[in-house]
Amino acid sequence: MPEPFRSRVLIEVRYAETDQMGVVHHAVYPVWFEQARTRLCLETGYHYADIENLGYYLVVSRVEARLLKGATYGQTVGVSAWIERLQSRGLRFAYEVDHSGALLAKGATEHIWVDRPTGKPCRIPEVLAEPFARLKGRT
Amino acid sequence: MPEPFRSRVLIEVRYAETDQMGVVHHAVYPVWFEQARTRLCLETGYHYADIENLGYYLVVSRVEARLLKGATYGQTVGVSAWIERLQSRGLRFAYEVDHSGALLAKGATEHIWVDRPTGKPCRIPEVLAEPFARLKGRT
Amino acid sequence: MPEPFRSRVLIEVRYAETDQMGVVHHAVYPVWFEQARTRLCLETGYHYADIENLGYYLVVSRVEARLLKGATYGQTVGVSAWIERLQSRGLRFAYEVDHSGALLAKGATEHIWVDRPTGKPCRIPEVLAEPFARLKGRT
Amino acid sequence: MPEPFRSRVLIEVRYAETDQMGVVHHAVYPVWFEQARTRLCLETGYHYADIENLGYYLVVSRVEARLLKGATYGQTVGVSAWIERLQSRGLRFAYEVDHSGALLAKGATEHIWVDRPTGKPCRIPEVLAEPFARLKGRT
Repeated sequence: MPEPFRSRVLIEVRYAETDQMGVVHHAVYPVWFEQARTRLCLETGYHYADIENLGYYLVVSRVEARLLKGATYGQTVGVSAWIERLQSRGLRFAYEVDHSGALLAKGATEHIWVDRPTGKPCRIPEVLAEPFARLKGRT
Repeated sequence: MPEPFRSRVLIEVRYAETDQMGVVHHAVYPVWFEQARTRLCLETGYHYADIENLGYYLVVSRVEARLLKGATYGQTVGVSAWIERLQSRGLRFAYEVDHSGALLAKGATEHIWVDRPTGKPCRIPEVLAEPFARLKGRT
Repeated sequence: MPEPFRSRVLIEVRYAETDQMGVVHHAVYPVWFEQARTRLCLETGYHYADIENLGYYLVVSRVEARLLKGATYGQTVGVSAWIERLQSRGLRFAYEVDHSGALLAKGATEHIWVDRPTGKPCRIPEVLAEPFARLKGRT
Repeated sequence: MPEPFRSRVLIEVRYAETDQMGVVHHAVYPVWFEQARTRLCLETGYHYADIENLGYYLVVSRVEARLLKGATYGQTVGVSAWIERLQSRGLRFAYEVDHSGALLAKGATEHIWVDRPTGKPCRIPEVLAEPFARLKGRT
């Protein structure tokens, strides 16, 4: 089975993201994951903002992060994202945060497709089915 | 001229709000101001969420904060808010943050009324004119 | 086996915590969990700030949240916290966020004890062993 | 009098930075200013993290922002920073946020030099005096 496509963004640690322990606060990781996911989605040809404009939301139903090593102000970290599981009504993204060859954190988010006008869960929008399958490595 | 009405909220400092200097990051103060402003607006009889539902936004056009003394995790600070200036198309709120008798910060925000459907600046909604004037101490 | 002690805090949703979907952003939940955890730790007789002053950190090694229903500005949510697992070198807290009888989110965080001077993992500080065991419902 | 040196960073708007009004929340601007200030400080030859390691803090004593036009998710904004005023014991930075030729926000922060070991205000560290004067356009 082919590997999923991996996107990668570089994020400069912000002073505001540190806490009094001197490292990045753990609640920041989901925000970094989201920036990496935005970059990955862009590979479909649609910015996630466009997907919302098409009338859909990719609502987060689950988020998890495993923190291995603190990120510090002054570092620029790499955040990779890929699709780990793709279903007709939702998907699971996986993430890794690294710096200087060391893995700082791993994580995942799960999402369901929601139709904006009704607010109800729905199937993946037809125009996005092929692009997301391609990112997953299926086609 | 009568004094404006002062609302007051107590806010427990969150660990996530500290930075590596060991005190609350300065970008947190506008968020605390907003929580105090929400409490003040409630004295009009309308929660700010209701004001949005009526079809208006109180858009922030200016924010300022003077930081005198750091707030730390473990403290519960008091945040006071009042209307400093009231005009037909906007207003200015003032704030003070204190702990244990010491003033930690002062600040202000300026806002303009915006009509949600059009996104255009507008006059204060009629139903809110009297309640806001009352908070300002005019009536 | 006795039930663990459950602490509970009430948190007013902040405007700044919402995103353009109109609900609280998922990265806010770990911050709410932390505020509930702070309250739970206080039942040991030590504020978490005191625990740091004693020379220890409870470093977050894992965070997870399952989001069931969006929280909105104007709501005050309840956040409950309890110890789900207690080990000699770490522990796992569990959380629930509810509003008006509905469960909005569930989550958990895992932590390891770290000795501040050395930065190395360590056993639970002796003075905290009994209080944490009591919260766990062991004694 | 020569112009101060202007640094510039590009910042991709994060979904988490938006609020239910559909634009970036005003409390985010000080965080963006800080990222631009970090970049500007780097032109002295010292990352701000290095300045802290030298034993100094540049504590924020004032922050202000004037918001002209909302920033939205999907945009990458430019943030410029320069030294507006340089004194022996502190300084004032100014900022501009723009997108696609339009000015979105302007702001400023004021800082005082603090000696880390004592926590007392102090004069600008000797090694930094010339580099900061250079950025100010004095030399």
